[in-house]
Amino acid sequence: MYRSLPLKDIQITDPFFTARIETARKVTIPYMWETLNDRVPGVAPSHCIENFRIAAGLQEGEFHGFWFQDTDLWKWIEGVAYSLATHPDADLEKTVDEAIDLAGKAQQEDGYLDTYYIVKGIDKRFTNLRDHHEMYVAGHMFEAAAAYYEATGKRKLLDMACRVADCFDANFGPEEEKLHGYPGHEEIEVGLAKLYRVTGEEKYIRLAKYFLDVRGQQPHYYDQEAAKRGETQIAWSHLRYPQKPYTYYQAHVPVREQKEANGHAVRQLYLLSGMADVGSMAGDSTLVEAADTVFDNIIHKQMYITGGVGSTHEGEAFSFDYDLPPERCYTETCASIALAMTASRLNRIAPNGRYGDTVERTLYNGILSGVSLDGTKYFYINPLEVWPDRCVRRQDMHVDPERMGWFGCACCPPNVLRTLTGLGNYIYAADEESLLVDQYIASKVDTEAAGQKIAFTMEANFPWDGKVRMTMNSAASFRLMLRKPWWAKTWSLTLNGELVEASLANGYLTLESAFAAGDVIELDLPMEVRFMNATLRSPNYVGKTALMRGPVVYCLEEKDNGGELWNLSVKAVEAEASHREDLLGGVTTITCQGLRQEGEGDLYNEDAYAEKAQQLTFVPYYAWGNRGRGEMAVWVRKA
Amino acid sequence: MYRSLPLKDIQITDPFFTARIETARKVTIPYMWETLNDRVPGVAPSHCIENFRIAAGLQEGEFHGFWFQDTDLWKWIEGVAYSLATHPDADLEKTVDEAIDLAGKAQQEDGYLDTYYIVKGIDKRFTNLRDHHEMYVAGHMFEAAAAYYEATGKRKLLDMACRVADCFDANFGPEEEKLHGYPGHEEIEVGLAKLYRVTGEEKYIRLAKYFLDVRGQQPHYYDQEAAKRGETQIAWSHLRYPQKPYTYYQAHVPVREQKEANGHAVRQLYLLSGMADVGSMAGDSTLVEAADTVFDNIIHKQMYITGGVGSTHEGEAFSFDYDLPPERCYTETCASIALAMTASRLNRIAPNGRYGDTVERTLYNGILSGVSLDGTKYFYINPLEVWPDRCVRRQDMHVDPERMGWFGCACCPPNVLRTLTGLGNYIYAADEESLLVDQYIASKVDTEAAGQKIAFTMEANFPWDGKVRMTMNSAASFRLMLRKPWWAKTWSLTLNGELVEASLANGYLTLESAFAAGDVIELDLPMEVRFMNATLRSPNYVGKTALMRGPVVYCLEEKDNGGELWNLSVKAVEAEASHREDLLGGVTTITCQGLRQEGEGDLYNEDAYAEKAQQLTFVPYYAWGNRGRGEMAVWVRKA
Repeated sequence: MYRSLPLKDIQITDPFFTARIETARKVTIPYMWETLNDRVPGVAPSHCIENFRIAAGLQEGEFHGFWFQDTDLWKWIEGVAYSLATHPDADLEKTVDEAIDLAGKAQQEDGYLDTYYIVKGIDKRFTNLRDHHEMYVAGHMFEAAAAYYEATGKRKLLDMACRVADCFDANFGPEEEKLHGYPGHEEIEVGLAKLYRVTGEEKYIRLAKYFLDVRGQQPHYYDQEAAKRGETQIAWSHLRYPQKPYTYYQAHVPVREQKEANGHAVRQLYLLSGMADVGSMAGDSTLVEAADTVFDNIIHKQMYITGGVGSTHEGEAFSFDYDLPPERCYTETCASIALAMTASRLNRIAPNGRYGDTVERTLYNGILSGVSLDGTKYFYINPLEVWPDRCVRRQDMHVDPERMGWFGCACCPPNVLRTLTGLGNYIYAADEESLLVDQYIASKVDTEAAGQKIAFTMEANFPWDGKVRMTMNSAASFRLMLRKPWWAKTWSLTLNGELVEASLANGYLTLESAFAAGDVIELDLPMEVRFMNATLRSPNYVGKTALMRGPVVYCLEEKDNGGELWNLSVKAVEAEASHREDLLGGVTTITCQGLRQEGEGDLYNEDAYAEKAQQLTFVPYYAWGNRGRGEMAVWVRKA
Repeated sequence: MYRSLPLKDIQITDPFFTARIETARKVTIPYMWETLNDRVPGVAPSHCIENFRIAAGLQEGEFHGFWFQDTDLWKWIEGVAYSLATHPDADLEKTVDEAIDLAGKAQQEDGYLDTYYIVKGIDKRFTNLRDHHEMYVAGHMFEAAAAYYEATGKRKLLDMACRVADCFDANFGPEEEKLHGYPGHEEIEVGLAKLYRVTGEEKYIRLAKYFLDVRGQQPHYYDQEAAKRGETQIAWSHLRYPQKPYTYYQAHVPVREQKEANGHAVRQLYLLSGMADVGSMAGDSTLVEAADTVFDNIIHKQMYITGGVGSTHEGEAFSFDYDLPPERCYTETCASIALAMTASRLNRIAPNGRYGDTVERTLYNGILSGVSLDGTKYFYINPLEVWPDRCVRRQDMHVDPERMGWFGCACCPPNVLRTLTGLGNYIYAADEESLLVDQYIASKVDTEAAGQKIAFTMEANFPWDGKVRMTMNSAASFRLMLRKPWWAKTWSLTLNGELVEASLANGYLTLESAFAAGDVIELDLPMEVRFMNATLRSPNYVGKTALMRGPVVYCLEEKDNGGELWNLSVKAVEAEASHREDLLGGVTTITCQGLRQEGEGDLYNEDAYAEKAQQLTFVPYYAWGNRGRGEMAVWVRKA
């Protein structure tokens, strides 16, 4: 079992990510705090802190917002905690402590803490696990508590979280007198796993395992629960998924029998993350294997080239194998984050390059596209093709052609925040003998790993350049495992300038050595422009190509190529990459020869359209939509 | 002003349509009557006749069904009347008379007749013109009444209709004390025009004109009406069309200011039909011109190649120029029928080939696709591309991959019925001097037109063969105007075997002559396979072609070409047409050389896919889906 290196031990110096992390720290964190307090003019009030004040008896009023509104605070604290781990900030910590104190005042005698039910009637709690997200809220609280404890050493939030967990443990479990339910929106499983990791309390991992074991069993808890509520209406999710009731919740069959991704994409991936965590911590390999089976289905049959997942707006959900429409998709930012979470967790159990490849694909594409370059605007949905007229004038599109400032359901912004401030979690991992380098994000490390003190500096300029240089800052003897990205057709590895024959297994180049201080390991992963195809099983991409270079997916924007992108086609199989510091915060663009169809025919005609040579300019997909409204396309016809 | 020849004077002998009309007569008419009476096992009850019985006080009970459920009866009667005009049937007529008697018993003292409000509370009538279709119901009643009177000479239903119209006239109009409203679903305008035509009562055309004149004026009647109802909720249509409130109803601006098609497609086209009728009958050319402007917008920018209209399921509506997605469209059968209605009406005012071309396009494609070859199953939505998995497994598709037996909202089946039994309305028209032949549907005519008795026989084998032969059965001197279809690149016209130099103007070949009995006019319109393009302004069809031959649009079906149709491309620009009597009720198929991409790559890869030669077999689009579930595509990639 591998573990990520502690965030505190990693100082990120990456030229690509540093600016984004700084924006998250300096812009997003204070901005979000203001929104949680309803102090941002022009933004719909969150009511999040107000709900806590009301629940704490400090203020009169009604609960407002979604039944999971509390998570806005918990996700914010988690994101702040990761930041504090490497960038202490006494003022910010004081703000968090005050928020924790406030929440503490709302916590009930028996540990229960969910402002929705505390304000609206606590007698109704635990009556609608299918829809009402109490466990989801708790899971995010546990993640925040573990992160804040690890960052600051302060126990108050952790103790509060344990009391919440104890409350669930007292009410749920296999014992006859307890409830046998489980969450409609998974998340408590990963939260409990973190509580277990931090506290060592076995009951927490046992409870998480119970939630996984009981999920989807017959007679169905959601049927029983709905009957108890006297519900006569058919659940929304049944209407939408009549052929497979409860697939929306991944509760149609027990989790070990699920072979493909189904339903709400974020829930599916939080479930897989929980299965990986619980399976490894509780020693149940059947959970890990089941998670891996569904993960495989996703990356081989249900994932967009950007690492986006969720092909349909209906239920923000997976649809079915090879159904990957580029324009009318969901590909929520949170779902890509959740895919990275799952991949990273599976990699900690049995390292394999495909996991790190997946994290990399999401990080440089489908996650980063969710936030504007200045860090202030967000996409909830990340389509691969946008015709703004269609987004705006077809009311069935559900796709915004431009990023927006904030959402009523503000799940993506804090999720991006915690991903950026917690980026260190994805870079390295170690066990007793080995250190894995999963992402080539430049950083300075000083840690205990593989049974010793390890200190080194990693220099890199991803995703624009494939040269990575590690300099050992202390002597250490261990197995260094460097992920060889799927896109690197060739590579070279040197130690102090001498070529090294490294073995390649499971996607890792492995170098076992007694390193001396000052040793320099250089890995060169040449980045070439690749003209990608999609499988012929998918109807949307036949005859089209998507350009990639290294881990970056490219796209055409109207700004660079004129309108009606659909009339363009790629002619050359040669392309030129050039770095432009002045563009989009500094990006490598790709140019290649293309053709533009031209002609003014009737709606339907037999004209021979003219084709005119046009140089095509591609920019990184993650950076699209930062220069005003316009068309965008990842997949382009081949001439 | 031209008028269609009376149905009674036209005996259709067409090899293509006769079988379909016979099915309509022998299968659809009795079947629908059974459904109206809730006597078809397995079909959701219509409650239509039951509602009339309850409204008539003959039965206790509640109103069931849509608020426009009465139209099921009226549309059935209209369809039956057209059939009776040429095929008298005493038993059927007796059934209709009994239904009329029943409806008569439900009619109120002041003429009002709408079972929804009669049963649910007549005090609420006229309080929600926007949504509740009272005028729509009346319009269909008027059409039925006019048709039944013309077919049978019986006045009872006509008199009832006049009383209904009088009731509206008493309640609506410019006078201060009257209501100044107009229908949310247009139809009463064409109905009143028919009542006017049959009765000569000017008040009916005046009322119809009032409804058109007041439509979309400010202050907005629907705002006022909603305020009177104390409505606080935002109307559904506003939520869907926030940028243009009331476009869904074509009531955003006055009708003469509307320049493009908007909102619910059937409503838009019933409005245009009404504007054409009322404009011509009331002598207001501004109405006709305004209708023509929107019609032009449709056929040049918003019409599918099949004559389907309505690009979006949301509101069953037009979306915007060049937005014509082939898979996710609406293209309701009723909308294509309504497009033919509009085109035919505009042609009666100022004949132009483009109108008859449009009728022809809808008849042989987008209308006929709505009904199965055996006449028992219907498409509501007529997509141009179907991947059944996507229809079934994506809950946001709203497209059925197979025709269904009956619909809860049963608007399309009776609309197809009245189109088929009333097909004669579309074939010929005449004024004082000329006879127009608009559709080459074989038939025998014996009529009064162009100021004299005209009798002739037209033989044709459309849409498979372009040879048309007219034999005069009596001497007559008139101007014969034969529509030259848009697809006929060449033609020849002979009189008694001698080539005739006919002038071509406005899409008509005109032959002015004193014809003798026995004269034979032969028109040859060679049908070639055409590889059609779409305009480059539309994103969906670039690099693709659709095959047509004569008026028929073709498609690929999985049955003939194997699955994954998206992997096929058309290679040849030569194609072979051959007639197969054994297939799909007798169709001309097209074969041509194509390619199939093959390969088993990863989800995303750099493979060079193999291309294998494959002969492609195209069948007429209207006949697709009659051989079990499978893929279908009209537009195919060009190799």
